[in-house]
Amino acid sequence: MNPLINRQVRLRSRPLAIPQAEHFEIVQTPVPVLDEGQVLVRNVFLSVEPAMRGWLSAVGNYSEPVPIGAVMRSFAAGRVQASRDSAVPVGAWVTGMFGWQDYAVVRAGEIQRQIGERDLPLSAALGVMGINGVTAHYGLLQLGRPQKGETVVVSTAAGAVGSCVGQIAKLQGCRTVGITGGETKRRMCLDAFGFDAAVDYKAADFEQQLAAACAGGVDIYYDNTSGPISDAVLTHLNRGARVIICGTASVSSWDPIPSGPRVERHLLIKRASMQGFVIFDHPEHYAAAYQDLAQWIRTGQLRYLEDILLGIEHAPDAIAGLYRGDNLGKRLIRIAQD
Amino acid sequence: MNPLINRQVRLRSRPLAIPQAEHFEIVQTPVPVLDEGQVLVRNVFLSVEPAMRGWLSAVGNYSEPVPIGAVMRSFAAGRVQASRDSAVPVGAWVTGMFGWQDYAVVRAGEIQRQIGERDLPLSAALGVMGINGVTAHYGLLQLGRPQKGETVVVSTAAGAVGSCVGQIAKLQGCRTVGITGGETKRRMCLDAFGFDAAVDYKAADFEQQLAAACAGGVDIYYDNTSGPISDAVLTHLNRGARVIICGTASVSSWDPIPSGPRVERHLLIKRASMQGFVIFDHPEHYAAAYQDLAQWIRTGQLRYLEDILLGIEHAPDAIAGLYRGDNLGKRLIRIAQD
Repeated sequence: MNPLINRQVRLRSRPLAIPQAEHFEIVQTPVPVLDEGQVLVRNVFLSVEPAMRGWLSAVGNYSEPVPIGAVMRSFAAGRVQASRDSAVPVGAWVTGMFGWQDYAVVRAGEIQRQIGERDLPLSAALGVMGINGVTAHYGLLQLGRPQKGETVVVSTAAGAVGSCVGQIAKLQGCRTVGITGGETKRRMCLDAFGFDAAVDYKAADFEQQLAAACAGGVDIYYDNTSGPISDAVLTHLNRGARVIICGTASVSSWDPIPSGPRVERHLLIKRASMQGFVIFDHPEHYAAAYQDLAQWIRTGQLRYLEDILLGIEHAPDAIAGLYRGDNLGKRLIRIAQD
Repeated sequence: MNPLINRQVRLRSRPLAIPQAEHFEIVQTPVPVLDEGQVLVRNVFLSVEPAMRGWLSAVGNYSEPVPIGAVMRSFAAGRVQASRDSAVPVGAWVTGMFGWQDYAVVRAGEIQRQIGERDLPLSAALGVMGINGVTAHYGLLQLGRPQKGETVVVSTAAGAVGSCVGQIAKLQGCRTVGITGGETKRRMCLDAFGFDAAVDYKAADFEQQLAAACAGGVDIYYDNTSGPISDAVLTHLNRGARVIICGTASVSSWDPIPSGPRVERHLLIKRASMQGFVIFDHPEHYAAAYQDLAQWIRTGQLRYLEDILLGIEHAPDAIAGLYRGDNLGKRLIRIAQD
């Protein structure tokens, strides 16, 4: 009997800035026989995240870098194809850090979640019903504490996290302003995600557009970019504003740390705060977030867009593509029938 | 009967950066007769604050700028010399925003505080028992939430706020690191204010000294300076660190906003926060703070130093002197017998 063949996307060399196709290679290797307590997951969707740049970086980061030669770290969603753990039935839909590969051999503790909402598409489990949705939910609601009538500004507003933040803020009765790049994404913010205003940071008159959209000031800034976009937003903070630092997508390297306008005076005069967070610190929040998110999806109050690449051969270039802005919506790679 | 003569220090022209003697003039004017409900305060001590630079600035600030020709805004401590308000007895010791002048005609609502602790020196009411002590108490305890064993770093550590922050942190069981300028103030931090370590930001090896003093990382950074001092401290933040933005003394102008290393990545990776505050927003906290501070002063657990100029003629240059670092301890001007 031939063993199953597992295609794996492995890290070939360490990127100094944005990971490119050349930093990866695809290798075929047999799937090992399961030991007692192990589970074989057939990955169906692989995730592609901006945060992967950080996971691959050797300098100051919030997780250990992926070792050279290892399978690329990634969220994935799939089905249990074989199980030697009675708690994990064959056929279960599961998510976890299963990596960029066809098959993952894992133990029950490595399964992040057995998906209960079988009425929702499996792909959603990696975006709006996964880490992106939970990140938006926690950051906005727990750290931002939005009040009805407040103005919430979101950077990367058409992205997987940003679009979710905007819609959740709207559900709290806030006025929402999205910042995104280009007219297509700007229209998506308005038409698909219901932002009250959307501003193109690539436009020559970006700062004026932003000032007009934020005429009443900014109460919450959900920041996924850092850089000049944030510099512009910070000039509009209201008293008591909350700035939530979720990502730094606009900064291509933090070694050395790039310069920008100092923030202390804004924070002092406006009695404002900036708070960084990493969602993996808050697993106790996930269950409540999944429940809210699923309900909002079912009622049509929470929309999401996916940008699905077909075939594992697209994985090596997929992160670079994110940073080029190729995608519209949450980027996934489908590697088997869902 | 000759009226009382009131010497007033008035704003002559608006400073673009640090206020100098030439921006003020001393004018003599008669004290008006009291109306019903008014109180005449004989100022004894006038305060000199780093924040006065901000009160005089026309650009982005946390209070309306002092108008040209007006008496310089200032905390003062004095005695009620005449009263047409039965709630304010003659002889009461009071503090308030009475301005740089001999006499203030005010209503009861303008009196910040009738001083109860007559066992403590009147001058203390403008420093450790005034806005400086309350600022340290609120910022450190309410925003910093220090835990026993944590490391607290304070900039302007030998100053009126900083020295108080260090001692209160020590009373909470924290390890304290003071940052100050010059060997004299560094010794004061160690010998007078009990810091566990003190670092001279003017030393050529400041960054190495700081790294050695913060080998276990920084849990709370109480920032009174901004600028390169803060840039150095932020590289040592521990996970979950709290940065309290209380002042920006090291930055001579915020117009235009000066550049510095971006902070977002520190905040994200370390799940850290930066929070600005202005103590005037928190009057509900004052009573509890006064009670703690008075008790710690009486037991000798909270020490303070004063730098008292004798005579109102020293007022015009007094702010510039602060920024030159002339003073050791809280700067006051005594203009009458206490």
